[in-house]
Amino acid sequence: MDETVSIVLFSGTDDKLAAAAVLAAGGAALGRPVRIFLQYWGLNAFRADRIMSDHGLVPEAGAAGRAAVDAAAKAGQAHWADTLRMAKELGDVDIQACSASMVLLKLKQSDLDPMVDGVEGVAAFYSNAGDGQIIFI
Amino acid sequence: MDETVSIVLFSGTDDKLAAAAVLAAGGAALGRPVRIFLQYWGLNAFRADRIMSDHGLVPEAGAAGRAAVDAAAKAGQAHWADTLRMAKELGDVDIQACSASMVLLKLKQSDLDPMVDGVEGVAAFYSNAGDGQIIFI
Amino acid sequence: MDETVSIVLFSGTDDKLAAAAVLAAGGAALGRPVRIFLQYWGLNAFRADRIMSDHGLVPEAGAAGRAAVDAAAKAGQAHWADTLRMAKELGDVDIQACSASMVLLKLKQSDLDPMVDGVEGVAAFYSNAGDGQIIFI
Repeated sequence: MDETVSIVLFSGTDDKLAAAAVLAAGGAALGRPVRIFLQYWGLNAFRADRIMSDHGLVPEAGAAGRAAVDAAAKAGQAHWADTLRMAKELGDVDIQACSASMVLLKLKQSDLDPMVDGVEGVAAFYSNAGDGQIIFI
Repeated sequence: MDETVSIVLFSGTDDKLAAAAVLAAGGAALGRPVRIFLQYWGLNAFRADRIMSDHGLVPEAGAAGRAAVDAAAKAGQAHWADTLRMAKELGDVDIQACSASMVLLKLKQSDLDPMVDGVEGVAAFYSNAGDGQIIFI
Repeated sequence: MDETVSIVLFSGTDDKLAAAAVLAAGGAALGRPVRIFLQYWGLNAFRADRIMSDHGLVPEAGAAGRAAVDAAAKAGQAHWADTLRMAKELGDVDIQACSASMVLLKLKQSDLDPMVDGVEGVAAFYSNAGDGQIIFI
């Protein structure tokens, strides 16, 4: 068994980013290697100049969902970016930007939050995933 | 090989809930243990007082997709909640609410449909998933 | 280890279809069998009469995301359908329509793009997936 948990993080809303962060932090807390591959709007959310901005929620959240998320933030729930930073400190969490999405969004690695460890292609992603679980979010 | 199929059910639209129910029922029919972990809007859809309500569809369904789904329901297609209830009767299907999402949405287990078997955290989710497939919906 | 990569393609927006095509092409380029199971709006996007039409983007793409995707297309980036056709020529990529979604959308196989190899149910999908990775998009 390859214990690595790989997350393809395509989505860019704060609720899906939080779900990804919780799955990553949970895997890391269990001592499992975690690999995150940032594509499209998931990558866009890691731009250094707006990582802490409001990235919205999926449409079905609605007004009640928005209120619940805002209340949790006010009550001190960690932001997904901080959850990921903590997971990287405590465990083996590697975050890579998808090279094709970098071109699409005209980004350089210096545009991204420092918690992004590098840029790689889909072949490297598969190679690092081995035969471990792949979770597309 | 761990034959368990684990589904992280994050999304709360009826089409994605139906897709999850079909994958769960299919796995159960093949004799595989199925574990469903309810997060965010997927969890919200299992509130006892509104599980059979209209939860909408993903945006790309559009008007034509909405009409197709409505026509199928009228023609007798099972509701996703009934598909899941049947899958639980026929096979080994366990449905757990994510404890963090329960707090976020201020829910108690008694607020949820009785087919939800319990509440657990992400560590228990990973433990139950073993090295089986994880499907994020 | 079962090297097969299975993709349940539920979503019908061009960005998610492109992400699926890249993961399929990447797997095929590495010599891995790739199985794609088309459901709902993912299936709808493979209708022969509109596969090259604009299928929109996920909501969080926004106007800036739309502009980035349009600019990439103008600069010669391959359409996801062409990426998949190429992947099928170079590797072992099998594309199956979900039989239940065919009924829902009232489609016959002749309504679909010729790159769709057949129609199957969820049991056949699981059987082909073996214990390989399953990616729900």
